[in-house]
Amino acid sequence: MPSYTPPLRDMQFVMHELLNVVDELKMLTPHADIDADTINAVLEEGGKFCSEVIAPINASGDAEGCQLDKTTHEVATPKGVKEAYKQYVEGGWPALSCDPAYGGQGLPFTVNQAFYEMLNGANQAWTMYPGLSHGAYECLHAHGTEEQKKLFLPKLTSGEWTGTMCLTEPHCGTDLGMLRTKAEPQADGSYKITGQKIFISAGEHGLADNIVHLVLARLPDAPAGSKGISLFLVPKFKVNADGSLGERNPIFCSGLEHKMGIHGNSTCQMTLDGATGTLVGQPHKGLAAMFVMMNAARLGVGNQSLGLTEVAYQNAVAYAKDLLQMRSLSGPKAPDKPADPIIVHPDVRKMLLTARAYAEGARMLQVYTVLQLDKAFASDDEDERRSARPSWRC
Amino acid sequence: MPSYTPPLRDMQFVMHELLNVVDELKMLTPHADIDADTINAVLEEGGKFCSEVIAPINASGDAEGCQLDKTTHEVATPKGVKEAYKQYVEGGWPALSCDPAYGGQGLPFTVNQAFYEMLNGANQAWTMYPGLSHGAYECLHAHGTEEQKKLFLPKLTSGEWTGTMCLTEPHCGTDLGMLRTKAEPQADGSYKITGQKIFISAGEHGLADNIVHLVLARLPDAPAGSKGISLFLVPKFKVNADGSLGERNPIFCSGLEHKMGIHGNSTCQMTLDGATGTLVGQPHKGLAAMFVMMNAARLGVGNQSLGLTEVAYQNAVAYAKDLLQMRSLSGPKAPDKPADPIIVHPDVRKMLLTARAYAEGARMLQVYTVLQLDKAFASDDEDERRSARPSWRC
Repeated sequence: MPSYTPPLRDMQFVMHELLNVVDELKMLTPHADIDADTINAVLEEGGKFCSEVIAPINASGDAEGCQLDKTTHEVATPKGVKEAYKQYVEGGWPALSCDPAYGGQGLPFTVNQAFYEMLNGANQAWTMYPGLSHGAYECLHAHGTEEQKKLFLPKLTSGEWTGTMCLTEPHCGTDLGMLRTKAEPQADGSYKITGQKIFISAGEHGLADNIVHLVLARLPDAPAGSKGISLFLVPKFKVNADGSLGERNPIFCSGLEHKMGIHGNSTCQMTLDGATGTLVGQPHKGLAAMFVMMNAARLGVGNQSLGLTEVAYQNAVAYAKDLLQMRSLSGPKAPDKPADPIIVHPDVRKMLLTARAYAEGARMLQVYTVLQLDKAFASDDEDERRSARPSWRC
Repeated sequence: MPSYTPPLRDMQFVMHELLNVVDELKMLTPHADIDADTINAVLEEGGKFCSEVIAPINASGDAEGCQLDKTTHEVATPKGVKEAYKQYVEGGWPALSCDPAYGGQGLPFTVNQAFYEMLNGANQAWTMYPGLSHGAYECLHAHGTEEQKKLFLPKLTSGEWTGTMCLTEPHCGTDLGMLRTKAEPQADGSYKITGQKIFISAGEHGLADNIVHLVLARLPDAPAGSKGISLFLVPKFKVNADGSLGERNPIFCSGLEHKMGIHGNSTCQMTLDGATGTLVGQPHKGLAAMFVMMNAARLGVGNQSLGLTEVAYQNAVAYAKDLLQMRSLSGPKAPDKPADPIIVHPDVRKMLLTARAYAEGARMLQVYTVLQLDKAFASDDEDERRSARPSWRC
């Protein structure tokens, strides 16, 4: 059974000894009060959650997988997934780097991303439930109307609701210019959306009271290609003006898909059958708006690689210390045993050190990158914010 | 659903235009009558079996997997596996390059290995049932007693019985010097063998009337390490002197193991609880004898890689011609469609051509290598046989 140990000391080295993130962050008004003790304490607590709550349900979740009830269109997640998510929400983790205006704790992205390294190392499949939510939060925060922000951001911040990113369709892969999902304007200003999306991570599940789908679709007068795509917010349950939940919206999971190693996440085919949505951002400018979420997802995928590299390295080291085979070239290192542990063999050491170098290098690159994002979003210098943001947005 | 097309023309090119195998093989007395038409006809028929019988049960077999009945210790294989094996036996395929003295067709290894490329490309998991048998055949042919050969080789040649290779134990991985399975001499010249083996491909199944396990174990007076290993023949059902089947031998599947992509093969933990076996070759010289089978398995693994490279390439090409995304850099190539097939993109072409180069290069290397084996085994020149064989045997 694989295990996961939060690499707290390695994180602290990169943050405090290599990149001095506290000095950099303190220069930003929203983070003027940050200090190393706060960062370390948050990551230590976060690490406990990762190693004690979600790591233990990683292998079992992958073996069990998700189950779709084709009658109700509900998806049952593996044992323990829902309970772990409840603890995650109760611990306030979704709010870590969210805007205090919507209930967030306002900590730097740098801290949140380091926490996510541990989530991904402990259980990537599980982490995709809250991970997608955070991307949807960022996209709505950047492009939502005041009404959309008021109704949806506090719930995404608290984690009571989760989010998804509905881009790909069966016929067009990554070439979103060809997507066909249609959005028809309604008299009340909303849209009826019809089409099919595939590979939707966390597309359906029972973890949250509502699921906020961000959906790319075409308006009737849309130009062809990627210049004719608009972005819509399509909740699983419609949301009344007072924030209470209304009727079930016809956006259903019509099938589960397999992604190797993440069977614990519900990767869904989603069918929209005249589902009600509201426009996010400007008509035909949906792809640019969605890029906020897509860029968050890109950073998230890099973060997954880092987490997986670290946990793979940790377990490879444990295995190499445990498995006895042959003798060291320089003479027995464990003379009381029938053979030496394979970690004594030069090529095994080389492989382990290579993995460790990838993990340490990727962690440094990540902290550096996200620190630049914190500066881009929170700088007092408007020119600095403006010059940094386009590269983040698309 | 992946498909498989036997690469007959590519095989013919390597055999007849590049390496002129017929000219080389004809110089060997046992193959004096070989001609290109015979080779081509055999591979054409073999290709039909691969594409029509075993390729269609590849994906379904991997999804279904094997099931162990823990009461009876019998293993149920996926739908179609047993029926395909019956056709394989009825077609005479197991006998292709076996010794005519035991019912074999005596064709060159070169032909058999080319046939195996197609088996592996069409369904690697399925191919490991007959593949292990052939290795056991070769090992017994080289090191068995006359009695063992008489009782077992005709059945392995016909495919009525299958074989396995029982080396690895839970504590020692590839360091066979540490293996602990014990063989106790009995008054009648047989041995009682007790121990546990893991990762035994085709270890238990209902395809054949009997399973011939070749098992490494230690005699009571064995020196420590790899110099104290002996080889035993342990049949699932004991075999009477007249060749009929006797009582069930206590060598049982005690668990199934998972190997990615080959769930269709029964990868077994095997428990021997005083199972009756007979010695193959000399006491304490079992590793050298087993190397005949291990070397056959090594060639087999290279062959698996070739088959998988070819079938992956074939399906990647089909996908790259089917999926429409973006436009060619040099202008639309499919102007009547919403986008060009991705095969027009330079990096996609580069990836496809790289895969094709690996497949074609590996095929050439394989035919060349196995041709040298044919020469080593069938040369009229005893010195040539002797000088070539040691490298084959260990």
